[in-house]
Amino acid sequence: METLSVKDRINSLRNVMNSHGIQAYIVCTEDFHGSEYVGGYFKAREYLSGFTGSAGTLLVTEENALLWTDGRYFIQAAEQLKGSSIALMKSGEKDVPTLAEYLGKNLAEGSVVGFDGRTVSTKMFWQLAKKLAAKKVTFAVDSDLAGLVWESRPPLSAEPVWELSTEFSGETRAEKLSRVRAKMSENNADFLALSALDEIAWLLNLRGNDVLFNPVFLSYMIIDKNKAQLFAKKEIFDENIVKALAEDNVEIKDYDSFYNALESLESGSAVMLDPAKVNCLITRSAAKNASVIERESPIMLMKSVKNPVEQENIRRAHIKDGAAVTKFMYWLKYTDEKITEISAAEKLEEFRKMQSGYLGQSFEPIMAYGANAAIVHYSATEETNTTIERRGLLLSDTGGHYLEGTTDITRTYVLGELTDEEKRGFTLVLAGHLDLAAAVFPKGTRGANLDILAREPLWREGLDFNHGTGHGVGYLLNVHEGPNRIHWRLKGNVGSEILPGTVTSDEPGLYIEGKFGIRHESLVLCREREDGFLYFDTLTLVPFDLDGVDKRYLSDREIKLLNAYHERVYKEIAPYLDEKEKEWLKTATRAI
Amino acid sequence: METLSVKDRINSLRNVMNSHGIQAYIVCTEDFHGSEYVGGYFKAREYLSGFTGSAGTLLVTEENALLWTDGRYFIQAAEQLKGSSIALMKSGEKDVPTLAEYLGKNLAEGSVVGFDGRTVSTKMFWQLAKKLAAKKVTFAVDSDLAGLVWESRPPLSAEPVWELSTEFSGETRAEKLSRVRAKMSENNADFLALSALDEIAWLLNLRGNDVLFNPVFLSYMIIDKNKAQLFAKKEIFDENIVKALAEDNVEIKDYDSFYNALESLESGSAVMLDPAKVNCLITRSAAKNASVIERESPIMLMKSVKNPVEQENIRRAHIKDGAAVTKFMYWLKYTDEKITEISAAEKLEEFRKMQSGYLGQSFEPIMAYGANAAIVHYSATEETNTTIERRGLLLSDTGGHYLEGTTDITRTYVLGELTDEEKRGFTLVLAGHLDLAAAVFPKGTRGANLDILAREPLWREGLDFNHGTGHGVGYLLNVHEGPNRIHWRLKGNVGSEILPGTVTSDEPGLYIEGKFGIRHESLVLCREREDGFLYFDTLTLVPFDLDGVDKRYLSDREIKLLNAYHERVYKEIAPYLDEKEKEWLKTATRAI
Repeated sequence: METLSVKDRINSLRNVMNSHGIQAYIVCTEDFHGSEYVGGYFKAREYLSGFTGSAGTLLVTEENALLWTDGRYFIQAAEQLKGSSIALMKSGEKDVPTLAEYLGKNLAEGSVVGFDGRTVSTKMFWQLAKKLAAKKVTFAVDSDLAGLVWESRPPLSAEPVWELSTEFSGETRAEKLSRVRAKMSENNADFLALSALDEIAWLLNLRGNDVLFNPVFLSYMIIDKNKAQLFAKKEIFDENIVKALAEDNVEIKDYDSFYNALESLESGSAVMLDPAKVNCLITRSAAKNASVIERESPIMLMKSVKNPVEQENIRRAHIKDGAAVTKFMYWLKYTDEKITEISAAEKLEEFRKMQSGYLGQSFEPIMAYGANAAIVHYSATEETNTTIERRGLLLSDTGGHYLEGTTDITRTYVLGELTDEEKRGFTLVLAGHLDLAAAVFPKGTRGANLDILAREPLWREGLDFNHGTGHGVGYLLNVHEGPNRIHWRLKGNVGSEILPGTVTSDEPGLYIEGKFGIRHESLVLCREREDGFLYFDTLTLVPFDLDGVDKRYLSDREIKLLNAYHERVYKEIAPYLDEKEKEWLKTATRAI
Repeated sequence: METLSVKDRINSLRNVMNSHGIQAYIVCTEDFHGSEYVGGYFKAREYLSGFTGSAGTLLVTEENALLWTDGRYFIQAAEQLKGSSIALMKSGEKDVPTLAEYLGKNLAEGSVVGFDGRTVSTKMFWQLAKKLAAKKVTFAVDSDLAGLVWESRPPLSAEPVWELSTEFSGETRAEKLSRVRAKMSENNADFLALSALDEIAWLLNLRGNDVLFNPVFLSYMIIDKNKAQLFAKKEIFDENIVKALAEDNVEIKDYDSFYNALESLESGSAVMLDPAKVNCLITRSAAKNASVIERESPIMLMKSVKNPVEQENIRRAHIKDGAAVTKFMYWLKYTDEKITEISAAEKLEEFRKMQSGYLGQSFEPIMAYGANAAIVHYSATEETNTTIERRGLLLSDTGGHYLEGTTDITRTYVLGELTDEEKRGFTLVLAGHLDLAAAVFPKGTRGANLDILAREPLWREGLDFNHGTGHGVGYLLNVHEGPNRIHWRLKGNVGSEILPGTVTSDEPGLYIEGKFGIRHESLVLCREREDGFLYFDTLTLVPFDLDGVDKRYLSDREIKLLNAYHERVYKEIAPYLDEKEKEWLKTATRAI
């Protein structure tokens, strides 16, 4: 087993850069599909730099090596880059140029910039190209140089695929393909190219296990008017699936043959793709013979609107998940065991595993005690793992995949005495959570219109939180999906309408550095009233810890909303609890 | 005095169209400056069609004549067009093409479309040109054919101009010019072309009387790095103003010489203009020698942010206006006189005229009784004038110009018994008004983020209103100004940030056809708290009629807000009332 140092690896990379005539090489963190988590095969940036964070970009030039990462990782990156000769570039800090700015300033005219185009979205590539236009730079977008120097690269994941029956998906593959083809026809497209793994999984009613926390499988698709090609490792499909796909005119092709297939589309034909989702090598390959129609993926919207079967299933998933998390809450508040952040997360996972249809965690659990919870992206490691004491707050943001859907819940638990500041924060965040969950609004309303309902109780007190208030959630798919989103800032895309059938999180928070972090998150289903107005139906069913509530910070209406929610939690969850738990839940959901 | 029929006028127009080689001629309603109200000189559409409404476009072709107008005017236009041979095109109705669609369908290829380019904004022209691109149409944009056939056309207004001292404006002309030149420099512009009359009046600290309800004067400007040219009728300036302008390097040129001056700019120079504000003849003339830089007018933002002197003055204007309207309210509720909508509006104007510094109405007053108030743009005429009875609601939306600023206030008065539906509506609209007025929000927040605060009490009950919630208000200038605006719909422009120093209206409403209309409007000043958050300080000081309030529809917080507001109204307004009025005001502003 080779154990080259990072310096050696960078030098090997420079050698192949030299032989390929490349003056600057960029190594990104993404996989070929824009996934939120990436497998070992895709961790070239980690291999070459030694930096293990989930966000960062490495640039290697003939003279220098630099790594850009954001505020979450400044300390970790500085530590891991020691002795590597790689300079740390703190993104967002004053006087720190972006990668494009750095290249713009330091590249010689006519240089060749290389990267693996499969790891850069088309949109990102256009932005880079625009910024370097004056430099007359050439891009070598098909150079996976990291692969050339990385001898013991882990293989691509190739876990078995399984079929999600219509009992759970609510719509056949044929029906979905037909809806997609109608959209292609609207846009005068002969082909649709897909690479987002959750879109392919949704469309084909298949699930896999190639990406951590996302039940998807590595694949691409090219759909035409009558048939479709699915590019994936052939060994991941059993005979029945191959047959079922063939019946719907879906042919399985080798994963690696996708780019060639795109390049070979008939000239004169038109291929539709989403530049925000497909990587730039896909766009380049598609444009070789065919003309490219850039459109937002039609599947994104279809997938976000849950059908009646999915909605009914999701309710069931939330009752199971609610029972598991409520049991955890009782255990957490009354156990005599010594608990740490990690052991608490394991205990919660145990409760979830007792539920039928449970398939695994939907994201890396956040179990953050005291001041740790003030770090928004905190996830306990062996090094940071903190013992939970009988005072203060524990923030617990976790979720599960069930056959009946995906959950995502944050509760902040009171473990003993609280300061007035903690109680005030706990209650103000709860007020915003309740106000947003009770919103009523006409069709056409966007997340940017709604956001203030969750923030106004905090804003009035001069407080705020620095993350979005809500994201879409997939059905037994990615826990973060678009296009529905709740945020007050109108950046770039102004945000899409909140449509009936979409599932969105409602998760305001408050983070006081060095002290505590609070977040209250439930998932809500958008529904339509008889009069045509829309409202949210809360899916998540776990009490808010009343030990944290200071009634002075709630309006009469918010108190009524809280009591009505707790009444519902008791009614729906009590049947799944033992007598002791049930008795406690009665108190935990009492009217205040 | 000629009294040609509309048919004769259209025929004369066709004759000059023919001699000018024009196949389709468009007559718009706008003046040369995009003003909200237009003087007699500009009423060519009214002269040629006989239709007197404030919105509408006439199209005359060799064979046909058609007039487009919107829902407010369908009945009036049908009546006024009788026997004219002009077809009424009901804009927005199903199957009614827009003017561009009609031309696209009916014009022969290669036709010449004429209009007076001074009455069409650059933005509108681009839209029309784009839609007719396939038709290979030529545009004759400098043809004022209406002027050729209109023998007794009223002259251009030329009322005297007067200077607004810095005691009222808070900033000298030289300071303002210097700020504008900094913006020109930022945009690498050699010249700035202006035609919006409120922008010119603001910049020069001058006021006039050429446009109904807007204290502005007909003019254009070309500003360069050191001097400026003001194009206006020379007779409107007295010697002192000419001298004062000269001291600031502003030279007066003839109104009509503006377009020639634009055409004669040095070639190679760059002229900045706002395509949403300047007409298309300006853009065409500017582009003759110079290059055009299209930018949002920098003056719009400067003008919207009121300086400390303006803010202090505006407070005073609202105390005066508050005293006048409060006196009116007392009179209205207790007089024995027989009142009509028109006589009530006259009475209110009398109270305003008693205030020092009062200069006139800031817009056409809306005094609408009972079901009339359900017509959002209602303004009483001799024909519709309704006697006010001792029951139901009177909606009164009026405003004044003072040396100390411009006001705009709507109160809905209770004249006797109300139905439960009226009380509920009155109170829900008030709840939204109070919630928006009490908003606290960070910098960067836009009107689209805030709007839901005003609507949510209505939305919850399945109610809504079909107009914006707030508009910017000028300082002794136009009562409607940008860019600040409160509306939930994200159309085209996503709306600008609400900045400290801006004055915006807060005016939710409810309109039940055939029954009643309710609106509660105050102006609010955006201010910054010590912690950096922004909030609204309510400027308007007149009670909300407590006879309309049903407490069941207000939250505890809203009741507190209402009581605090009324306490302030009493404190600020009582000193300006007589004993009887004061005694009544005590009751009218009682805590509920």
